[in-house]
Order: sequence, then structure tokens, then C-alpha cells
Amino acid sequence: MLLKNDQKQLLKRFKEVRYLTEQLTEPLETEDFVVQGMVDASPPKWHLAHTTWFFERFILKDHLPEYEELNPQFDYLFNSYYETIGPFHPRNQRGLLTRPTAREVFSYRNYVNAHIEKLLNNLPESKAELVLELLEIGLQHEQQHQELLLTDIKYNFSQNPLLPVYSESSEPSGINRRVFEMIPLDGGLAEIGHSGGDFCFDNESPRHKVYLEPFSLASHPVTNGEYLKFIEAGGYEKPEYWLSDGWAHIKKEGWNAPMYWFKAEDGWNSFTLGGQKKIGLDEPVCHVSFYEADAYARWAGKRLPTESEWEYALEDTVCDGNFVESRTFHPRSARSGNGKFHQAYGDVWEWTASAYSPYPGSKPLEGALGEYNAKFMCNQMVLRGGSCATSSSHIRSSYRNFFQPEKRWQFSGFRLAEDAE
Amino acid sequence: MLLKNDQKQLLKRFKEVRYLTEQLTEPLETEDFVVQGMVDASPPKWHLAHTTWFFERFILKDHLPEYEELNPQFDYLFNSYYETIGPFHPRNQRGLLTRPTAREVFSYRNYVNAHIEKLLNNLPESKAELVLELLEIGLQHEQQHQELLLTDIKYNFSQNPLLPVYSESSEPSGINRRVFEMIPLDGGLAEIGHSGGDFCFDNESPRHKVYLEPFSLASHPVTNGEYLKFIEAGGYEKPEYWLSDGWAHIKKEGWNAPMYWFKAEDGWNSFTLGGQKKIGLDEPVCHVSFYEADAYARWAGKRLPTESEWEYALEDTVCDGNFVESRTFHPRSARSGNGKFHQAYGDVWEWTASAYSPYPGSKPLEGALGEYNAKFMCNQMVLRGGSCATSSSHIRSSYRNFFQPEKRWQFSGFRLAEDAE
Amino acid sequence: MLLKNDQKQLLKRFKEVRYLTEQLTEPLETEDFVVQGMVDASPPKWHLAHTTWFFERFILKDHLPEYEELNPQFDYLFNSYYETIGPFHPRNQRGLLTRPTAREVFSYRNYVNAHIEKLLNNLPESKAELVLELLEIGLQHEQQHQELLLTDIKYNFSQNPLLPVYSESSEPSGINRRVFEMIPLDGGLAEIGHSGGDFCFDNESPRHKVYLEPFSLASHPVTNGEYLKFIEAGGYEKPEYWLSDGWAHIKKEGWNAPMYWFKAEDGWNSFTLGGQKKIGLDEPVCHVSFYEADAYARWAGKRLPTESEWEYALEDTVCDGNFVESRTFHPRSARSGNGKFHQAYGDVWEWTASAYSPYPGSKPLEGALGEYNAKFMCNQMVLRGGSCATSSSHIRSSYRNFFQPEKRWQFSGFRLAEDAE
Amino acid sequence: MLLKNDQKQLLKRFKEVRYLTEQLTEPLETEDFVVQGMVDASPPKWHLAHTTWFFERFILKDHLPEYEELNPQFDYLFNSYYETIGPFHPRNQRGLLTRPTAREVFSYRNYVNAHIEKLLNNLPESKAELVLELLEIGLQHEQQHQELLLTDIKYNFSQNPLLPVYSESSEPSGINRRVFEMIPLDGGLAEIGHSGGDFCFDNESPRHKVYLEPFSLASHPVTNGEYLKFIEAGGYEKPEYWLSDGWAHIKKEGWNAPMYWFKAEDGWNSFTLGGQKKIGLDEPVCHVSFYEADAYARWAGKRLPTESEWEYALEDTVCDGNFVESRTFHPRSARSGNGKFHQAYGDVWEWTASAYSPYPGSKPLEGALGEYNAKFMCNQMVLRGGSCATSSSHIRSSYRNFFQPEKRWQFSGFRLAEDAE
Repeated sequence: MLLKNDQKQLLKRFKEVRYLTEQLTEPLETEDFVVQGMVDASPPKWHLAHTTWFFERFILKDHLPEYEELNPQFDYLFNSYYETIGPFHPRNQRGLLTRPTAREVFSYRNYVNAHIEKLLNNLPESKAELVLELLEIGLQHEQQHQELLLTDIKYNFSQNPLLPVYSESSEPSGINRRVFEMIPLDGGLAEIGHSGGDFCFDNESPRHKVYLEPFSLASHPVTNGEYLKFIEAGGYEKPEYWLSDGWAHIKKEGWNAPMYWFKAEDGWNSFTLGGQKKIGLDEPVCHVSFYEADAYARWAGKRLPTESEWEYALEDTVCDGNFVESRTFHPRSARSGNGKFHQAYGDVWEWTASAYSPYPGSKPLEGALGEYNAKFMCNQMVLRGGSCATSSSHIRSSYRNFFQPEKRWQFSGFRLAEDAE
Repeated sequence: MLLKNDQKQLLKRFKEVRYLTEQLTEPLETEDFVVQGMVDASPPKWHLAHTTWFFERFILKDHLPEYEELNPQFDYLFNSYYETIGPFHPRNQRGLLTRPTAREVFSYRNYVNAHIEKLLNNLPESKAELVLELLEIGLQHEQQHQELLLTDIKYNFSQNPLLPVYSESSEPSGINRRVFEMIPLDGGLAEIGHSGGDFCFDNESPRHKVYLEPFSLASHPVTNGEYLKFIEAGGYEKPEYWLSDGWAHIKKEGWNAPMYWFKAEDGWNSFTLGGQKKIGLDEPVCHVSFYEADAYARWAGKRLPTESEWEYALEDTVCDGNFVESRTFHPRSARSGNGKFHQAYGDVWEWTASAYSPYPGSKPLEGALGEYNAKFMCNQMVLRGGSCATSSSHIRSSYRNFFQPEKRWQFSGFRLAEDAE
Repeated sequence: MLLKNDQKQLLKRFKEVRYLTEQLTEPLETEDFVVQGMVDASPPKWHLAHTTWFFERFILKDHLPEYEELNPQFDYLFNSYYETIGPFHPRNQRGLLTRPTAREVFSYRNYVNAHIEKLLNNLPESKAELVLELLEIGLQHEQQHQELLLTDIKYNFSQNPLLPVYSESSEPSGINRRVFEMIPLDGGLAEIGHSGGDFCFDNESPRHKVYLEPFSLASHPVTNGEYLKFIEAGGYEKPEYWLSDGWAHIKKEGWNAPMYWFKAEDGWNSFTLGGQKKIGLDEPVCHVSFYEADAYARWAGKRLPTESEWEYALEDTVCDGNFVESRTFHPRSARSGNGKFHQAYGDVWEWTASAYSPYPGSKPLEGALGEYNAKFMCNQMVLRGGSCATSSSHIRSSYRNFFQPEKRWQFSGFRLAEDAE
Repeated sequence: MLLKNDQKQLLKRFKEVRYLTEQLTEPLETEDFVVQGMVDASPPKWHLAHTTWFFERFILKDHLPEYEELNPQFDYLFNSYYETIGPFHPRNQRGLLTRPTAREVFSYRNYVNAHIEKLLNNLPESKAELVLELLEIGLQHEQQHQELLLTDIKYNFSQNPLLPVYSESSEPSGINRRVFEMIPLDGGLAEIGHSGGDFCFDNESPRHKVYLEPFSLASHPVTNGEYLKFIEAGGYEKPEYWLSDGWAHIKKEGWNAPMYWFKAEDGWNSFTLGGQKKIGLDEPVCHVSFYEADAYARWAGKRLPTESEWEYALEDTVCDGNFVESRTFHPRSARSGNGKFHQAYGDVWEWTASAYSPYPGSKPLEGALGEYNAKFMCNQMVLRGGSCATSSSHIRSSYRNFFQPEKRWQFSGFRLAEDAE
């Protein structure tokens, strides 16, 4: 039976995804699991528990009849923001919790994993479709938290003057070549949004028409070397390049370079998950905010693409690149490849010019899971394409990531666009 | 000569607009000119001076050769946010300046007015087009500040337990009738953006194509009576209606009704420029934030229109209504009129679902005036249609007003939309 | 009859004190009455009204039977901090009130003055003692606010880049001579606190014994010239001179000189009520916080005197000097005089090493007036001797002024002490 | 030789004190070592390391010639506030450091311990006196941090909804009897301050004369049962009992009971190091701020004693009681004992009415250790007598503890006093 096969497949995938999360914490000391370096960055322990709670709360409690929670208080501690489910522990206090310990959280994971397996092995046909759909959401959710796990560990480590190393990086060998060009595209009536029967989040559909003027899109993301010229040209000192909010923000925060950059004796260095290293001039610039991406584009006489333009241009580009599977945990230098556009997927998320808002005719999921995406559709900008911390099985051309324009602890870069002459 | 006539016309208009600003301050005591009730609300004195500085800085200093500033320090004090011109007095300290006095500011106005008149009377042909264009921008700018003058006075007065009255309001007589309906519109490839040779701001052009799905738009803005039902249904207590930022904001601020509403012995009252009064159930709801508009729409099972939908639907509706000329300084009750849509212009600005962003192919003005609009294109939502504090000569179907989603001291309401079935 | 005479005397004094308050506002424009430049500095209008309310609330309402308030809302608006009387308008919002206007406040003053006169002219003998005592408190209270009026105007004006002048200062003529010495005093069992039948505040009594070790006290307050040496020696850059809280405070605020000092082309200038002027090297240093006084003393190898030492040493020094009556509104250069100690009274308040705390056996006044002094006995330091903004009839050797250690908008300086060898 | 014996004794004491610190962390999970629940409360790991750094920095680096630091960065990470030594890691970021791990910190302790032992075993006579004095300061310092370790763990645990238990408490058995009385004392010329040759901190000397009026001092600290009556009498709702700062503070924080109290179904409970328990009515009230102690005293018609009164009255009382050695980690119920005053030492620190300020003629230690005590002599109140978290060998009648008046996470209570009639 087809369904049985699907279940097996999904169970296999469940185990793999769940295992990867734990594997990503392998380099950590027990102490590293506890800390919340800033409000945005949750403790690793919390990510491990919250993703587990997600399966417990949305699948086991509703669909495994005899299920008993391991600890009823976890429903309070590990709910992130689902208001309709009930009260939850304040986000800014996640780093105050030393208990449950990391070991106890691993037990919680095992407990829930075992019950998910039990459920899948005895799944009544009437429930199969719904449960498999929820399970897929849970796995996609966990993959998102795998990325956050890495970016949050990076942030936490960067706060420590000892600059701990998460994973020794192997320097990529070989000659890097990059032929930068602006690639023209016809506009006209186009379609964007998810199509086909694969999984997508509710914010990616429905597929719908948009009208695009002719435009060009860059073959590569902007590199550190290019960005450095912006810095050296006084980019951070000239208000004419900046949005008003952006200018106020960089002045308040004292920003004068991407996050994690600092000046050492041998010039600009950056803190990476492999420790401190000299910035690679051919690597895509990373850990910039939307404000910085937008200012760079204005300085360069270009602009950021809208998310429609991005998706329209890159929908047919093969979705491969430098993902979490490479275990470099850092964007790689540009290199020529087969096709017009490079590094569209993986390496760095790419800021677009589009505010995150609902697609025409879109419908959030019913119930609490409707809070997953739709309620953030305000004051956030869309990013596209995944990063070096994203799972390759998680990304697709229609995928919409979103962050506030001042955020930059994600692996975020950008690619330029311009109007046709 | 045509130009001469244009100049005469514009001089006449210059005098009228400049005079209206001063007329709007006629009910004020000297003390009322000084105060800044919150960072957003500038002192009336400042509005009077800043609008004057605008003409001095962008016209007289560049185009009247022998011009001498009345006081060179005013360039620091009354520059609002034009970073490229030079440093300026911090916005949050505008209310600390007792000098120049109101009387001195009026002298400043007269001084600049006289020099503008002098310039227009001796305008070399080579400069005519540019100067007239700048003058028009200056007048449109002053009309914007007339509206802010009223909303800021209202805010300032509301902070005083004595609840001062700005202008006694005459209660409108007559029977109000309203037949509410959702009016269906075909979608398809449409055009929005300014057309024709009249003045528009740089953010309204170019006219461009957009693709719209079929939708319906409400015949009237939502009324106080309707909004009251949302309140009584626990709208402010149920997170499922709210954007995440909105919910956080109303909880932090303790909001449970529109701004200026408070409960008196005889039920809900509101503070108006005519003093305290019972809320009018048939008046458009006013002084709500985008968050509240959006939450109401979700509760009502509908949504806000995008700005494209709004403009497409209302472009051909005659632009008349309850503007500042009516001197009611408050939205009026709904009444039936000739046409399908009512109160689209005047009464209340209408929040749309659209984030404020550049039109495809748009170009900001050159130089410092490019800072006028474009640099605010982030974290703001578009409002359309003008309000009871707007001049009738200032509004048009393509006009894009914009504020942060939590702001509500403007005369801001909204109108519902929904997807076609 | 003695009492009748007392009443006449007091009525005369009442009129004089009340008149002086208004006279001190004579240089102000109407706009100047409104502003609150920081939370500590109340608007001039508020001082005029609050001192009036004090007489209305504590005398007229209790002791003039038929008295009717001019406006019952003033009880809310102009109560400063008397919690036991009822709720009051938040201190940090005093500058938001444009109404009542200055003119209306002057009317309020006249109204209350007339009723006080009426009460005094018809005072039943049974009430005479109590009413006269309350009246004296009211006048002392008003004298305190006269000083605040001046320091608050100075602060407000200093916030304005136009640097308004309150009162043109006449430069003092003549040769200034100062022979600085540390004057030794025997210690032993001493007495401090108010004695005699004159008015004093409840915090000055009872007179009580203290044991003092032998010490020396400086003949003069520290001057600008001396303080400048501390600055030039890097005083503001060396943590070893500073209390922990003081060091944190100056770093947070970026202080590197006394308040109102700034560097001009010709060296250190300061903003005064007479406008901008070069600092006078022989003038007592002024507008320093306790932290700065304490750090200077440590740098100089000395210390601040305790309030017991100050009072013990200076109790018999004649209480004359540069008070508000001189209308210089600024400390004067040191000059030799007849006696060992100079400038003990007037010129600048002198910080002591003593935290403000109750005297042994002290009793606050009964009722709401008990809130006048006692409830501030925490986290404040005692200052002694009055300033150039103090009325000569207001100061005495036992007078205890008090402010938080970081405050410096008062005319505050200091005098050194040291232990006997 | 005497010195050799002293060295042996001190080495023994060194090992005991150092061992106790580690023993106190025995109930902790690894995760518990990391967290900083509020700025005041340092992570356990930090206490372990900082006390070790103290020996390294002030003894080994100066007096053990060939000494090499285990890690030079620890000088930055574990300096607390010694400005004159160099820059240090910001206090409010101590909880962000996951490395060095707890295990590494224990290694650091062992490393320094071994070197101290080495130094003591080879101590040149010329250095003996100085080194032994520094060692004693280091041990007293470590004992202070033992107390902070307990209060900080308590605070951290209280932030966790799981309410972890540090150490199961054994309920004390037996009948508690308490005969409360106010015990009169003659005043007159008295002496306070440390006397004799034992160790004391620089802030306890010199012994000096003070003049005291006759007064009475309570035989016992105020109990939970007594404090409850204050609460039930509306103590937290009536401003007349409170200092102005205190009233503002409790309203801002929403305090209505001592810290760690909360209402459960069976009435008032509190969180303790033994977990949640019903409050013991005969236990001294604990975890109150100075503001609360002062307000209670005013409500009770009494006052707090000055530190002179406290020391004068209790100097001859035997210094025994409920200290950390009892391992109850909680104040014990009052019981009658042999002597007039009870629970003066141990159980709870007792707030006094005295601001923390230098004794006449006092001299801070030379160099960086002069920062230990003197630089905090501002805005803090003195507490006396030690608590259930204090080592018995650490406390004495002249010991001056000090905290800001709003702090209450220490084991702080109070005892009443009053003026003689």
C-alpha cells in the first residue's frame, strides 16, 4: 500500500532529521546548552526541547490516544509563541532555566521519538493523511530550528572573549573564478508561489499572477571584497545611502561593518563557527541587515530585487549549493558553475526588497498552526534561497524566509537587481 | 504669457495656504505653541517655523541672490530630517525651545513670505519652471503640516486633565442613512500611480501595471458602532485576531479601544478638538492603528484592501467629502450619496494592507528633497484618501500617506475588502 | 497686642515673598513659563501655581470657613508629592500642560493672596498660632521654590541653542584677594541642630550632642581655578578618585567638567543666567555633583566635612554673603573679609560628607506636612549654607538642604576638610 | 617558631574555606553553574573563579616569583570591579560565558590552590606578614562569596517555574518560645569599631567615640507573623509608612510581600533553598529591603537602630547562632536563649538606619585593595550580624555589610529600636 510506504519513508526521514539536530550539538559542552546570548538567540537546550514539544503538542496529544506527557510543565516552558494554546514562558527568560538539564532534554526527545514511532506503526487509515501532514510540518519546523541552533551558537560564542570554536573549518582549496554579470530578464505577466504537490508552508501559496517590468538580476551575490569597497568609500558615514530607520539604527548601534567583522593586525577578520579568520574577499558578504543590503545597493546605483523578481528569475535554477550537509558552516567563495545564476541556493539567505505580506487569496492553516507564519506579516522583509546552515531538503524556490530589517545574526547576504534601461 | 499667469496663480495660492496655517492656530493661547506632547507631535510653533524654513532653504537661499537669512541658527533649529543638508536639532527636544517665541516665528513667516513674493515678482524665465515646481512642493509640504498641526494640538490637549477645547463643534443635523454593501470588482491587469500633468509627489509615480485578482470593497469605512461590537466581542482580549507585533503592542500599552476613547458615566466618550463628546455610532471609527484595523478585519472575516485595490476601485470616485475646509475637525457620520463608494476622500485616512515601498521604476527627487519620501520606505503602511484635517486641494486618488503600524494619533480609520468567492 | 503685630509683620512678609516670586519671572517671555527641560526642573508656571496651592490647601481650605477653590482641578494639578492628600499629576508631565495659562496662574495667585489677607485680618485668636506657623512654612516653602525657579530657568535656557539671557550680569569690579588656609578646630562633644525660637524645618531639630574628632576646615570653598587643575590632572579619567557609583555615572553621562561648562575658542566658558561667559578662576566652582566634590577632595588628599563639622565650625559665622538679593544670580569671586571663614553663606551650596538622615529624637510634623522633609531621608546627601539664588532671610547655620549625589543643576559647590594630624 | 605555626594554621584554614566553597556547589547540576538570573546575581561558576583569581592576582602574581597564570585571559574575565588593575568583563554579561566550563574552573581552583600551598611552604620571612594578611583577606573575601553563592543560586532557582530544590530541609523540631521585649539601654559617650588584633576589614576601624541618646532595642528580629500583620493592615498600600523612594519602588515593582513569598492555596508560601514551603510565623522575616524594614518600623511606631546603637548594644553578646554550618540555609524560628538579645548573629542580616559611610579617621587599604570597601560608601545602608548563609568564623560585632536600600535577595531582616521616653 502506498500509505504504508509513505509512512516508512517519513519515519526514516523523521529519524534522520531528529538525529541531525542532536548531531549538530555534538561539539557543545554541557554549559553551552544553557545560554541565551540575546533575546533573539534561544539556548540550544531550548531548541532541542521546543522542536520536541512541537511533535508532542500537535501530534501525540491529539492523535495518540493513551499518550501521557513526560512533564506537563513542558507545555508552558517549551511553547514558543502559540497564544491560542495557552500561556508560555517569556522568550527573554529562556536563558535563565538551568533545568531541565541537557540530559533530561535528550530523554524528552527519546520519549517523544519513541511515541511518534509507535503512532506511525499503528496509524489508523482515517488519520493517516492528517498525521503525515503534521509530521512533515514538524520536520520542516525542526529544520528551521537546526539553522537557528547554528546561528544562535555562533552568536553565543561570539559574546565570549575566549572565542570558542564550534567546528574546525577546512579551508577550501582550488581556484575560485567569478565572472560577474547583470543578467537581463523580460518582464510581463508572471506567476510565483508554490506549485506541485510537495510540501510547502501556507505562506508560499497560492501560486498567483504578478506583473513584472523588465529587469536585470546579478549572477552572484555581493562579495566581501565588493562590500569592503562600500565601507572604504565611507558607506557607513553617508546618510544619503540609507533608509531613515537604517541610518538611525547603525548610528545607535555603532555599526561600521557586517556583524562578526572586527579589525585585527592583519586587517579585517571575522568570527566564524570555525573560529576567528581573515575575511575571504570572494565569499558572499554575510551577516548584514536589510538596511545594509539596501544601502549598499543604493551606493552601487542598483537596487534589491523584489521577491517576485527573485523567484521568477531563479525558479528554474537547480537547487544545489553549499548547505548544512557540507559542514563548512560558512559561505563559500564564488565559483563559476553551469548556468547563469550562481549561489542562489545555499551560502547566504538573500534579502529582497519585499515586505513580508500575504499572497492574494492565501489562507493560513486552521487552528494554532495558523500562528506559524501569518501573524508575522508586518515589519519584516523577505529573504530567499537558504544558506550554509540550511538543509538541502528544506529549501525550494518558493520558500519565504523573513526577518526584521535590522536583524543580521542569520547567514544573510544579498544579490543586486536593476531596472531595464 | 502663460508663465506670468501661473506665477500669479501660484502666488495667490501661496498666500492662501500660508494664511490657512496661521488661521488654524487662531484658537491657541501663546502657551499652546510650545509643547511637544510626545516625540511624534511637534510643537505648533515648530510647524509654523519649519514650513517657513522649507521655503527659505530650498528656494530663497538657492534662487534669490541677495537673500539673507533672518537668523542663521534657524537652519539648525528648523531642519526636520534632511541629513544631507546638515545637522539638525533633535526631534525629541523640539518642545524644550521657548525661543524663538511664537511672535518671533510669525515675524519669520512674514519675512520669508515677503521674500517669496519678491522672488516671484522678479523671476527670471530661466528659473521659472524650477522655482514654481519647488514652490508647489513647499505648499504641498505646508498642507501636510497643517494636518499635523491639528493632530498634534489634539494630542497635546488630550494630555491635559483640563481637556481644553480647540474649536466648539456644531453637531451635524439631519438624518443619517447608510446602506452598507461589499461592492464587487473585476480584477485583471490594472494600472495605478499618478497620471496627468498635475502635481504629485515622487512616491506616486510612475504609473504602472499591477495584476489584481477579483475582489470586493466596502461601500463605507467601518463605523464606531461596528467597531464597538468588536470591542464587546472581546476583540482586544483574543490573540487570534492580531498580528504578533500588534498583540505585543496592545498588551504593552494597555489599549482596549481606539485612541481618545474613554468610558464615562454615559458610556464611551471620546476627546475631540471640540472637547469631550459621546461617540457617534455612525461616524467612521477613527484614531485606530494599523494593528487594530487589521485585527478588526480578521474578526469580521474580511481583510484590508491593498493600496492597488483601493486606488483601482476609487480612482474614478469624485474627490469630495469632509475636509479641513468644513472646520468640523472630526469625521462625520456616514450618509448616502451619489455613487457606490462613500467617504473615500476626507473624514478618515484609510489603512491599507500594503507596506510602503517604491513603485517599479520610481526615482526619488534629486538632492536633499529626495529625502522627502523615499527614505521612509520601511516598516510603514500606506494610508489613502485624506481626512477631515486634510485640505481638499491636497488629496488625490494616487496620494500615498504612510505611518508606522502602531501610530494612531492621525485621523486614521479603514475600509474592508475581501476576495471574490 | 503682640499677636496682632505678629500678624501685621507676617502679612507684610507674605506680600514681599509672594511679590519676589513674581518679580523673578519678570524677564520671562510667556513661552518660557511652560517648559520642563528635565524631570527635575519644573516649569516656571508650575512653581507659581504650586506655591499658591500650598497656601490654599494647608491654610485656606482648613481655616477660612467659607473658602471656595478657584478651580477644584488645581488640587490634582498642583499637588507636588503629598501622597496622603490624594492623587497628583505625574511630575514628569508637568511640562505638557499649556493650560492654565501663565495669566490664569497669576490670577490664581491674586485670588489666594486676597484670601490669605482676608484670613489674617479676621483671624480668631484660637487659630492664630497654628495659622501663623503654617503661613511661615508656606513662605519658607515659597522661598525654596524661588531658588528652584532660578535653577530651573537656567537649565531650560541652557537646552536652547540660542542660549537666551535671563538677566544681563554686571561684572563685579575691584580687586579680589583670597588667602586660602585650612583652619584647625578642636573636636570633642559638640552640639548641632536648631536652637532658639525662630522658625526652622522639622529636619533641623532637636539640637543634640555629637562627638567630633579634631579636624580642619577650609577658609573658602574650592574655586574654578583649583577645580580646573583637577580636570587638567586627568581627574575625570582616573577611577581611583571616584566612588563606584560616581565613576559609573560620569562615564555613562560623559561628564568631563562641571555642568554648564563648555570649551570655546578662548578656553572654558560657562552658561550663566547672564548668558555665556568665560569662567572666573576665583569664583567658587559651581554646578558640581557630590560625586565630583568627593572625587576632587580625594585627589587633593583631603575630604568633605560632615554636616556636623560644618555646622559646628560655622555656627557663629555671620550669615551674610551673596544671596538672591544681590541679583547677580551667580557666585562671586572670593574676597577677604572679616573672619576666618569666607563665603560660608550664599554663593554656592556646599556638599557635605553626610547622608541625609533623621536627627536622634526627631519628629516629623503631623499629617501631610510630615511628608515635607522626612520621607526623603534616603539616598540623598546634605548641603549647607545657601547660594546666590537663596533669600538671605531663608538661610541659617542649621539649615539642611539635600539632593541625590548625582544632581548638579543647583548652585552647588563644596569646601574641603581634613583630619587633624 | 610562631610564624611557622601561623602559616600551618592558615594553610589549614585556607584548605577548609576553599573546600567549603566547592562543597556548597555539590548539589548543582553542570547547567546550574552558568546562569546569571539578574545583574546582581553572578553565576556560580563565576564565584568559583573570581575568588580564585583574587588569590592569583593579589598574592601569587606579586609574591611567587616564577608564577605563571593558567590562562592570562582570566585576568579580564574574573576581575570583578578593580578599576585600577585594568579593564574587566562587564558584570551584566557574566551569564553569557559558557567557557571556561565548570570543570575547567575547578582545575583553575586546584592550580591556584597548589601554588598557594607551595608559596606558604617556602615563604621568606620578609614576606610572611604581608602574605598572611593578604591570604586572610582572600579567605574573608571567599567567605563573602560563599554567602553570595547561596543567595544567587536561590535567586536563579526561583526564576525557574520548576522550582528546583537545592537541599532538602529538615524541619526543626521542638517547641519555640519567644518572649519579645524592648530592652532599654543607657546612652552617653560610647565606642564602636573594631578593637583587638584579629582580622577586620578596613571599613570597621578605627574604633571611635560616638554619642548616643538613651534608646531601647528589640530582643528579637521581627518575625514573619509580625510582618504578616503589617501586610494585612494594608502596609503596602499606605504611602504614609514609606520613604518616597521606597514607595516609588514598591509601586514600580508591584511588591506586596517579602521576596520569594507567594500565595498558594494554603496561604502564604515562600520559595527556599529547600523548595517551596509554608512561611513559618516564628521565623525572622527575611528577604525584605531596607524600604520595607523602614516602613514596617514606622507602622509599628518604632524605628530601625543606627549601626552605632546596634554595635553598642550587641558587642558583648556571644557570637553564635544559625550560620552556614547548620546547613539549614534558612532562618530558624525564634527561641529563648541565655541572654537578653536573641538571634543577633546568624539567621538574618539586620538592616540599620545608617547610611554606609567612612568612620572618622578611617584609611582604606593601599592600592587596588582600597577599592574593596571604600568606593561603595554612597547610597547604601549598613546591615549587621550575619545570616544563615554566613560562616561563623566570618562574622563579628563590628562587621559592616552594606547594600542598596532596594536590594532584598540577601537573607536580610531587621530588628526594631525606639527612643527612650
